[in-house]
Amino acid sequence: MLSKNIIKHLNALQRKKFRNEFGEFILEGEKMVLEAVQMFRERIVKVYCLPEFAAENNLSGVDFEVIEEKGLKQISGLTTPNKALAVLRQEVASAEKSDFYLALDSIQDPGNMGTIIRLADWFGLKQIICSPDCVDCYNPKVVQATMGSILRVRLHYADLSGFLKETDLPVFGALLNGENVYQKQLNRNGILLMGNEGNGIRPELLPLISSPLTIPRFGEAESLNVGIATAILLSEFSRG
Amino acid sequence: MLSKNIIKHLNALQRKKFRNEFGEFILEGEKMVLEAVQMFRERIVKVYCLPEFAAENNLSGVDFEVIEEKGLKQISGLTTPNKALAVLRQEVASAEKSDFYLALDSIQDPGNMGTIIRLADWFGLKQIICSPDCVDCYNPKVVQATMGSILRVRLHYADLSGFLKETDLPVFGALLNGENVYQKQLNRNGILLMGNEGNGIRPELLPLISSPLTIPRFGEAESLNVGIATAILLSEFSRG
Repeated sequence: MLSKNIIKHLNALQRKKFRNEFGEFILEGEKMVLEAVQMFRERIVKVYCLPEFAAENNLSGVDFEVIEEKGLKQISGLTTPNKALAVLRQEVASAEKSDFYLALDSIQDPGNMGTIIRLADWFGLKQIICSPDCVDCYNPKVVQATMGSILRVRLHYADLSGFLKETDLPVFGALLNGENVYQKQLNRNGILLMGNEGNGIRPELLPLISSPLTIPRFGEAESLNVGIATAILLSEFSRG
Repeated sequence: MLSKNIIKHLNALQRKKFRNEFGEFILEGEKMVLEAVQMFRERIVKVYCLPEFAAENNLSGVDFEVIEEKGLKQISGLTTPNKALAVLRQEVASAEKSDFYLALDSIQDPGNMGTIIRLADWFGLKQIICSPDCVDCYNPKVVQATMGSILRVRLHYADLSGFLKETDLPVFGALLNGENVYQKQLNRNGILLMGNEGNGIRPELLPLISSPLTIPRFGEAESLNVGIATAILLSEFSRG
């Protein structure tokens, strides 16, 4: 049975302020918790799960507590909680040097952020540089939308202007009036900068872009969602 | 002031059964309603809008009713209604002959369906063939996610097996064990078949695929969302 204090603590982790204070975040669902148990055991603070999850999976070495459905509902942020919830430590790691980065300017929607993290993982990018006003990557909606990729891709929140000024890598930016991306010879080297859902890349960063890129339109839709545009551009960098 | 009967009718349009019975659907939000007014006036049954929407836009020739915010809340399916709501006629049109189709097998998530319709519009596809068990394209969540593209792209619900058997076009299918899409010479000719979110393309359709396609993975994410995969594949067909 869960104590009131534990329930209060876990509910507090739904909010950024407390996630940062405790350096923890919540991951939910049978599949993702199991992946965390198997691949990222050292980052798990505690697993709360239904009896069948504990019976079906090897949790040795993991601090876990078996609870009833009622208890899971009390600590879950999901409408329909799914068997297990894990509290994990946020990863505090300095940026690694890389030659292919994704940089995000003020991405606001948790679903978009989650999609982009999952895409970075699919295309083998190890880290993403985010402007400080991007949505928190440990926001529960972001975490769930990453489908586990949040455990493999590192997000760094940093002043993009400083980062882009210091780099020797080419800076590609997704813009409406750039070069046709299908006519560029691209490879997995450089920084791909994606802008805010409504406003695009902020004006002060535009002079730092060395290669503006545009996805040509064949029909009449006014725009592409930023997650979709990121998918098409990462594909172009990777297809060789 | 809205009558009880009108409110009841508009609320009923949130459900597929009544949308089909009346042949109508609801479109919400200032931007999309304005686009419908400007481009698809003949399909508008009625517009319900706040005074400022009526004052700022030319609604001549459109049947509209000015209502208060309270009224808009009563008829809206959105948490935060936005100035205007339009009732439109569903388009009953037979399939046009085309040489580049998207075919969807059992797409369930309204957000994915909306994303795919918007993508079809961006890449200039005029119609999509859906299996009968796909989510209803006039579902309010689908309509909103299309960002207006629902007005330009036609969706036909049909038995995919029959459709694919009859066609002379090559049938491309998104599969996990297909050919590397980056190594295929593709052009905007054929049928691209995308499968269900969890189960992929149903087994009985697999023998009808002439070219199985796969998006190569560079990292570790287990899969791509179907909307994202559709984006990358339509981009490959269109890039030339």
